[in-house]
Formats: sequence, structure tokens, C-alpha cells
Amino acid sequence: MTERTVVHDTIVTERTYGHPPDRVFAAWRDPATKREWFAEGEGWRIEEYGLDFRVGGREHGRFRRGNGPETRNEMVYLDIVPDRRIVMAYTMAFDGTNISASLGTVEFEAIGAGTRLIYTEQGAFFDGADGPSSRKQGWNGLLERLAATLG
Amino acid sequence: MTERTVVHDTIVTERTYGHPPDRVFAAWRDPATKREWFAEGEGWRIEEYGLDFRVGGREHGRFRRGNGPETRNEMVYLDIVPDRRIVMAYTMAFDGTNISASLGTVEFEAIGAGTRLIYTEQGAFFDGADGPSSRKQGWNGLLERLAATLG
Repeated sequence: MTERTVVHDTIVTERTYGHPPDRVFAAWRDPATKREWFAEGEGWRIEEYGLDFRVGGREHGRFRRGNGPETRNEMVYLDIVPDRRIVMAYTMAFDGTNISASLGTVEFEAIGAGTRLIYTEQGAFFDGADGPSSRKQGWNGLLERLAATLG
Repeated sequence: MTERTVVHDTIVTERTYGHPPDRVFAAWRDPATKREWFAEGEGWRIEEYGLDFRVGGREHGRFRRGNGPETRNEMVYLDIVPDRRIVMAYTMAFDGTNISASLGTVEFEAIGAGTRLIYTEQGAFFDGADGPSSRKQGWNGLLERLAATLG
């Protein structure tokens, strides 16, 4: 029997944007905008992408960098409070093998004319692949790209 | 604007069964067996229950105790390694309002002729309702009922 291990960990990261919560929330809700900052990473080829933003709806993507492994992201939305909160669960897979399953909570707080976004990921990381620290780096990069998309 | 809060917490509980992992795993996989220990709680009326046990499949239930609120459980399976691991995400709702979203990891380890089951729940608990400690109690009760079902 192959030894399989699960490491559970929680990462928290936050970023403040100079736009009000409804603008920042919309960048998670609208498929074209979400695709821009979430999926169109430099050097990545998008083989498939779709977003159905509603409770029970799915988001799915398949990506590849050069001749690297197929990276697959399958997400389902669990809870949505407009302009306030999004909770989703997702898996990441390399070449068809899940490397993690996560619960992600996005909280939007009005701060003056802007928004404080807090992202909390409670993850189960499988078999030693891709750990919490690289996941946090990944999300910091995404929240940076979101800033660029908001302009 | 109503103040909404999210509390993130992780609960871990475990139980040892005198049956091998494939028997214990089967009690999570088979809809009739799962229904028996998971849904048929004493004093609860099952208004709806269904299980589609595969990655991407759903489990859903609506329950009521006497004239209490409708309790709804919506689950989606994220990762399944037969006889070893199940990872699912689920929400709990009272009268249509989500009180929590969780990532649940069930690990099955062979211990002699039996099984050590470790359940880890990484939860986002909303708006002060139903916290981590009552959730842990709830799962302890379910794992006890699972023992009775296994016989």
C-alpha cells in the first residue's frame, strides 16, 4: 500500500484596494474580468476556462505552461453574500492527480473609499506536493493581478 | 449594513473500529448505509436525502426535528481514494440561511484488523451561529452511530 499523507493548514493573506467593495466583488463575479486576473497568467496557455458564479455553480480551468503538466482547477461556490463574502471549495490537480482540496473564504470590507480584501484558505495538501507556502505566494500573485485589472 | 462575521476553525476527531478499512469506507460510499448512520438521527424527520458518491457528485439532505427549523446539508465530493481518503465540502443551513461551509477530510488507516478513522473539518462558521464545538460534538455522535451501523 502506498503511503499517502494529508497536511492540513490555513493561510491568510489580505490586500487593500482603492475601489469600493462592489467594484472589487464584481471582479470575482464577472466571468470576463475573473478570467483576466485569475486565469491569464503570463506564460500560461488556457486550454479551458468557465465560470458559473452562483451558489452551487462551478468554475473550471485547465492550464499549461510550455510543455509542463496540465494544471486543472475545479471550483464550486458554496456561499455568496454580494459585496461582502464568497466561499468556494476547489481542487488543484497536476496531470489528473489531485494535489490539494481547499475551502477559500473571500471577505470584502469597506475601508474609507476602498476595500480591504481578506482571503483565508483552509487546505488539505496531499502527498507532499505543493504546500501551503507556495499556495500563499500564488494567491498573493493573484491579488496583485486583481489590482492591475481594477486599474 | 448588517455586520457579518466569519470564524475559521479546525476540528479533529478520531475513532477506531474493529472492521478493516474497506468495510468502514463502504459505509460512506453506499447510499443506504450512509443514510442509516448519517441521516436517520433519532427524532429527526428526513424530508429529502440523496447521495451520488463520486468526485464531483453531490449529497443533499433536508431534515427537521419536530417543528424546528429546516436543516439543510449540501455536500460535494472533491477527492476519493478508495479505502484511504474522502474529501468533501459542505454547507449547513437553517431555514435557508447558511450557517457554515466546511472542508471535511476522512482518513482511513489500517490498525491491526481494524481501522483508525480520522476526521478533520476545516470550517468557516458564519454570523455567530453554530460554532466549532457543537460541530465536533455532532461528528462524534455520527462516528458513534457509524459504529452501531457496522455492528
